[in-house]
Amino acid sequence: MIVNMKPEATEEQIQHVIERIKECGYQAHVIRGAERTVIGAVGSSGRRTELEALVVAPGVDVLIPISQPFKLVSRELHRERTVVDVAGVPIGGERYVVIAGPCSVESREQLLETARGVRDAGASLLRGGAYKPRTSPYDFQGLGEEALKILRDVSEETGLPVVTEVMSTEDVNIVSEYADMLQVGARNMQNFPLLRRLAKAERPVLLKRGPSATVKEWLLAAEYILAGGNPNVVLCERGIKTFESELRNTFDLAAIALAKELTHLPVIADPSHGTGRRSVIPAMSRAAIAAGADGLMIEVHPCPERALSDGPQSLDLAAFAALMREMDRPARQRFGAKVASAR
Amino acid sequence: MIVNMKPEATEEQIQHVIERIKECGYQAHVIRGAERTVIGAVGSSGRRTELEALVVAPGVDVLIPISQPFKLVSRELHRERTVVDVAGVPIGGERYVVIAGPCSVESREQLLETARGVRDAGASLLRGGAYKPRTSPYDFQGLGEEALKILRDVSEETGLPVVTEVMSTEDVNIVSEYADMLQVGARNMQNFPLLRRLAKAERPVLLKRGPSATVKEWLLAAEYILAGGNPNVVLCERGIKTFESELRNTFDLAAIALAKELTHLPVIADPSHGTGRRSVIPAMSRAAIAAGADGLMIEVHPCPERALSDGPQSLDLAAFAALMREMDRPARQRFGAKVASAR
Amino acid sequence: MIVNMKPEATEEQIQHVIERIKECGYQAHVIRGAERTVIGAVGSSGRRTELEALVVAPGVDVLIPISQPFKLVSRELHRERTVVDVAGVPIGGERYVVIAGPCSVESREQLLETARGVRDAGASLLRGGAYKPRTSPYDFQGLGEEALKILRDVSEETGLPVVTEVMSTEDVNIVSEYADMLQVGARNMQNFPLLRRLAKAERPVLLKRGPSATVKEWLLAAEYILAGGNPNVVLCERGIKTFESELRNTFDLAAIALAKELTHLPVIADPSHGTGRRSVIPAMSRAAIAAGADGLMIEVHPCPERALSDGPQSLDLAAFAALMREMDRPARQRFGAKVASAR
Amino acid sequence: MIVNMKPEATEEQIQHVIERIKECGYQAHVIRGAERTVIGAVGSSGRRTELEALVVAPGVDVLIPISQPFKLVSRELHRERTVVDVAGVPIGGERYVVIAGPCSVESREQLLETARGVRDAGASLLRGGAYKPRTSPYDFQGLGEEALKILRDVSEETGLPVVTEVMSTEDVNIVSEYADMLQVGARNMQNFPLLRRLAKAERPVLLKRGPSATVKEWLLAAEYILAGGNPNVVLCERGIKTFESELRNTFDLAAIALAKELTHLPVIADPSHGTGRRSVIPAMSRAAIAAGADGLMIEVHPCPERALSDGPQSLDLAAFAALMREMDRPARQRFGAKVASAR
Repeated sequence: MIVNMKPEATEEQIQHVIERIKECGYQAHVIRGAERTVIGAVGSSGRRTELEALVVAPGVDVLIPISQPFKLVSRELHRERTVVDVAGVPIGGERYVVIAGPCSVESREQLLETARGVRDAGASLLRGGAYKPRTSPYDFQGLGEEALKILRDVSEETGLPVVTEVMSTEDVNIVSEYADMLQVGARNMQNFPLLRRLAKAERPVLLKRGPSATVKEWLLAAEYILAGGNPNVVLCERGIKTFESELRNTFDLAAIALAKELTHLPVIADPSHGTGRRSVIPAMSRAAIAAGADGLMIEVHPCPERALSDGPQSLDLAAFAALMREMDRPARQRFGAKVASAR
Repeated sequence: MIVNMKPEATEEQIQHVIERIKECGYQAHVIRGAERTVIGAVGSSGRRTELEALVVAPGVDVLIPISQPFKLVSRELHRERTVVDVAGVPIGGERYVVIAGPCSVESREQLLETARGVRDAGASLLRGGAYKPRTSPYDFQGLGEEALKILRDVSEETGLPVVTEVMSTEDVNIVSEYADMLQVGARNMQNFPLLRRLAKAERPVLLKRGPSATVKEWLLAAEYILAGGNPNVVLCERGIKTFESELRNTFDLAAIALAKELTHLPVIADPSHGTGRRSVIPAMSRAAIAAGADGLMIEVHPCPERALSDGPQSLDLAAFAALMREMDRPARQRFGAKVASAR
Repeated sequence: MIVNMKPEATEEQIQHVIERIKECGYQAHVIRGAERTVIGAVGSSGRRTELEALVVAPGVDVLIPISQPFKLVSRELHRERTVVDVAGVPIGGERYVVIAGPCSVESREQLLETARGVRDAGASLLRGGAYKPRTSPYDFQGLGEEALKILRDVSEETGLPVVTEVMSTEDVNIVSEYADMLQVGARNMQNFPLLRRLAKAERPVLLKRGPSATVKEWLLAAEYILAGGNPNVVLCERGIKTFESELRNTFDLAAIALAKELTHLPVIADPSHGTGRRSVIPAMSRAAIAAGADGLMIEVHPCPERALSDGPQSLDLAAFAALMREMDRPARQRFGAKVASAR
Repeated sequence: MIVNMKPEATEEQIQHVIERIKECGYQAHVIRGAERTVIGAVGSSGRRTELEALVVAPGVDVLIPISQPFKLVSRELHRERTVVDVAGVPIGGERYVVIAGPCSVESREQLLETARGVRDAGASLLRGGAYKPRTSPYDFQGLGEEALKILRDVSEETGLPVVTEVMSTEDVNIVSEYADMLQVGARNMQNFPLLRRLAKAERPVLLKRGPSATVKEWLLAAEYILAGGNPNVVLCERGIKTFESELRNTFDLAAIALAKELTHLPVIADPSHGTGRRSVIPAMSRAAIAAGADGLMIEVHPCPERALSDGPQSLDLAAFAALMREMDRPARQRFGAKVASAR
C-alpha cells in the first residue's frame, strides 16, 4: 500500500501515519518528494483493511494499493491453466466447448428436441433453466424441480451433461442431485452466502460475470469458491451495462483476454445474453473464440417465437447448426501485402 | 405493446404477426405508414412475455412496450404516499429521518458509544452490520449473531430501533428476531429468493438500489416484496457505477426525484456509499433532502481510522453532529434580483 | 510517479527502470517489499509523459501517478475562490446566479418574452442558442448571426447579460461581439483548438462538462483556458451518460461538491440537460444549490410544446417563476429528535 | 412517432394531440387500449423535432420514435456495401486492411523506420499524428505542419498512403494537402462544424466513435458528412467509457457487428485505443476481424518505452510482425463433436 500525503501535510501527520503502519504490522518506507511525501507500507500482515482506513487520517490524500487482492485464482502463483472436467467434458483444454440449450426448460419434448439438435450440431453440454431469475415477479419463473428431472432425463438420453442455474443456498443440494455443473447467474455473482455454499458443493461451478462487475470483482467472487474448497470454477462473460442501449448489454471481449492473463481458470463467453440480438450472435461467437474464450454458451429454442423467456436472443436449431458450421470458416481473407503505389 | 415492422415486411408477415397477437389474447390495431407498418397489441391477457418473443418473427424490426411493468408500487394506482412504521418511527411522513451507525458492529462499546452519539445529534434509527457482504473473502465478514445481540441490547438501552442487513433466506428468521427493519444490500437487489422470503417477513424492508439497476428494475424488485404480501418497503439510493472513478459511486439524486414520481413508497438516500468520500457527505446529505428524499442513512464510527470496514467514508461523532446542525442552514443566500444594467 | 514492478521482475529490470527514471530527470527511490519492488520517481522535470512509457519496460506491472495533473485551476495553489464577472453579474460569490432562457433563439418576440419573464422571476443572465450542436444533420441548427443580433438587442432592452454557445474557432470573434459570456458545449469540452482559442478571447467562458468526462478531465479542459491566458472560467455540470435511460442523463451533483473541493473556479449546474425531464427540474435545482453549486442554468420557453429544440425539458414562464419562488422554501421539516421508545 | 398517453388522459387532451399532429403535417391514428390510448403519427413531413415537443403536452406520457433517424448511411436504402478507396487501397472490400504507425510523428527517422517495418509485415496504410488532442495542456501536442511534411515524405518513400488526424476546420486544407485520408478523433465525433467542413473535403474520412457515443449517434455523425457531399467515410470503433477501469476503454466489438448491419459504410477497429494494453492487442485484433471489421488500426513505435505519447499501448516492430503472422492462425481447434457419454 502506498500512502500519498497531501502537499500541506505536517511532519506530525507523517509520523502518525508511520506509527499506524507499524501498528498494523507493516514496515514504513518514506519518500520525500518535491511536492509531497509518499509512504510505502510493506509486508503481509493480512491487516490490509485496517491499513485502508488510514485514508481518513489527517494529512493523508489518497491510498494506492500495489498488489492484487486475489490469490488462489491468480496466475502469478499458479501458472499452468486449470482444466475443469464436467462429467467427462473438459473445459479449458485445447478444444473449445459449446454449451447450448433453451433459456428455460418448458417441457420434456421441447428440451429433448433441442438437446438432440444441438448435440448433432456439435454442442457438448446442455443448458436449460429450472429456476429463473426474472426482473418482474409477473414473468415465468421456471418449472423448478420438475425441470431438473427433465434435464436429467434428457441428459441420460442424449449423453450431454447438464448445466443449470442455482439461485439459493437452499437449492444447492437438490440441483446438485440432477445437474453436472452449477451456474451462478450474473445477478448473483456477489451473493456471498451462495458462493460460500458452492465452495462446499461437489459439482463444478459456472460463474457468470455481474452486469456491473469489474474483472477484479469477478475474480474475487471466484476466489470465494476456491478459498472455500472448490477448485472447479469456470468464468463466463455475458455482457455489462453501459450507456449503449441498442443492444441488451455491451459484450466485453477484452475482459476475456484480460481474465485469461490474470487467472488460470477457464473463461467462456455467452453471446446470447452478451448482445441480446440474434443477428449478431454468429459474429460474436467467432470473435469470442478469437479473443481467447475456452467455450461458448448459446441459447437455442426449437421455436424462439414461442419461447416463454429470452425468445429474442434465442437461435432456432437451423441457425445454431449454421453457426457451428461457420465457426471454422476464416472470418475474412488475409490483408493484401501488395500496397498501393504512391500517387 | 407496439410491433414495429421492417420497411420491407411483406403482407404475409404482417398477417402472421396479427394472428399471433390474437393467439396471445390481445387485439391487433394496424397503422400503415409511409415507410413502414406498425401494429398495436391492446389488452391485458398477462401473456406479455410470449408477445415479446414476436421480435424474432420474420419482418419484425422492434417491439416497444407502452405500459409500466410494475403495478403495486406504482403511484398510478395508489396516489397517496405510503408511510412505513419502523418500531414507532415513521418513514415517508412530513419529517425526514436519519439512520446512522457504523458500517459493521465491532463490539458492544463501539456500538453503544456510536448509538448514544448519533441519537443525541438527532438520528432516530440505528444501523450496524452483523453479516457483511465483502468483495474479498479475506476481508472482515461481520460478527454474525453476536452482532445481532449487541444491536438489540444497544437498541434497548438507547431507544433507537435497529436496521441491519440480511444476506440470505436462511438468516431472515434470526435477523427478524433482533432487528426492527431488514436491509437488502445493493448487491442483493435482484436476489429474488431473498425478496420472496422477505415478502413473508414480519418486518419492514429497506431495499437498496443495485449499483447497476435502473429505476425500473429497482421498483420491480420492490414489486416482488409487495406482490408477496409485505407492503412495508423503503427504497434507498446508494450510488451507481459509472466511468467516473474519483468517487466510489455516482450518487444519483435525480433517481430519487424520479422514484418519488413513479412510486408511493418512501425513498431515502445513503450519501456514505453514494460517494465514498467523507468530505462531500454533508453537501450531499443536504442535496438529497432537497431532491425529495424521505431520509438519510449515514455511516458513523467513533474512530473511522480504526474501523474494520468502510473507514474512509465514515464520519466521526463530531462530524456527524456538525452535519446534523448544518442540515437546517440554507445552502446559500437567495439569488440577486438586481440584475446588472446593460453596458 | 510510483513504478510497481511485477513480483517476478529481475534485478536487471529494476536497474533499468532506475536508470530510465534518472534519464528523465527524476530521482528514484526503491522500496523492496515482501512480494514485489516499488520504485518512486520524485521530482518535477516536466517529462511525465516519457516516464509514463515505462509501463512497457520489462518487469514493470503498473504505474501509479501521485500528483494531480492540473495546476492553475487547483485549489492546492490558489486557496481563495475565484469570482467571475459577467458584464456586472458576479458568479461564484455569496449569492447564486440563475441563467435562464430558451434552448434556441427562434425569433425576437420569443426571446424578448422569455427574457422579460425570467428577469422578473429572478434570473440575472439570459441564455439562448444561436449555433446549435445537433445530433442529427436534419434537425434545426440555429439562426446563427441573426440570433446573435436578437440576443444583443434583447439584452439591451432587458438589462440581462447574454450567454451563448460558440462551436468553432472561426466563430469566436463574431460571438464575442454580441455575447457577454461564451459557452463551450458538452460535446466540445475536449475540442482543444477551441479551448486554446478561447484562452485568447476577451470574454469569460462557461465550460460544460462532457457527457463522459471525469472530473479530472473537466478540470484539465479548464486548465487549457487558464494556461492560455484567460482566468475567467465557470464550470457547468450538465449530466453524464450512464446505463440509466429513464432520464436523458445522470445528473452528477457529487461532481459539483468534488469540483468545489479541487478547484477555485465557480461551478454551476444545468438541471435541464442534466435530467431532460421537466417534472424533476425544481427538485434538482434545489438539490444542486444544496450540493454547493454557484448557480443554475435553466431552459425556459414561452410555449415548450412548440419549441424548435429541447421542448421536453423546457419550463414555461409560469413554471419557472414557481421554481424561483420555491428555491427559498426549506425542502422538508427537520428530522424528529424524539425517537421512538423501545418496544 | 407513437404518442403514448397517460392512463388518466382526458378526451380533450387526446384531441389536442391529434390536432397538433395534423398541424405538423402528419396523420394521426388512434388506438384505444384497456389501460391507455396510443396515437400513431404517420407521414414524412420532416417536422419531427416539433412533433417531439408534444411530450410536454398535457396528458402525454412518453413519445416513441419508430423510424431510424439516419438515411444516407442506412443499409435500408443502400443495400450494397460501400468500398472506400484511399489512394489505391480499398477499405470495405473482400480483404481487410491494416493501418499502422506511431501515435505521434516524432522525427523522420522514427516514422521511416516504423513505416518500413509495418509495410514489410503487411500493413497497407500508415498512421501518425501531426496534431494531437491531449487531455492535459502540458503534454506533447504534436509537431504540426512539420509532421505533415514528414508523413508525405515517408509515404512517397514507402508507398504507403497516409492517414492523420485533423482537429479543426482551419486545418482541413493543409492536412488535405499532405494526407490521403483525414481522421476525426473520438473527442471530435460530434464537432459538427468540423464534420460539415469535411463533407466538402476531397479526401476520404476516418470517423472514430466517441467514447460515449451510441451506435446511432456515431451513424448520425457520419450522416453529417454524407449529407454534406462526401460519401467516403470509414467508421472506426476505438472503445467506450464504462465503469471498468482495468483497461483504458471497453472495446465494443458487438458495435462493429451492429454497425455493419445498420450501415453500408466500412467499419474498422482500433484495438490500441480500444484496450490501451499491449498484451491483449493480438487477441483483440483477431476478435475484431472475426466480429466483421473491415480492417484494423494499430499503434506501432520502434521503441514504445521512449514514445512521446501512447507508449503503453504501442507495439514494437517485432510484436507487430508477430501479430500479423498470427492473424491467419485459427484461434483454437474446433470443438469436439464426440460428447461425453452419460455417467
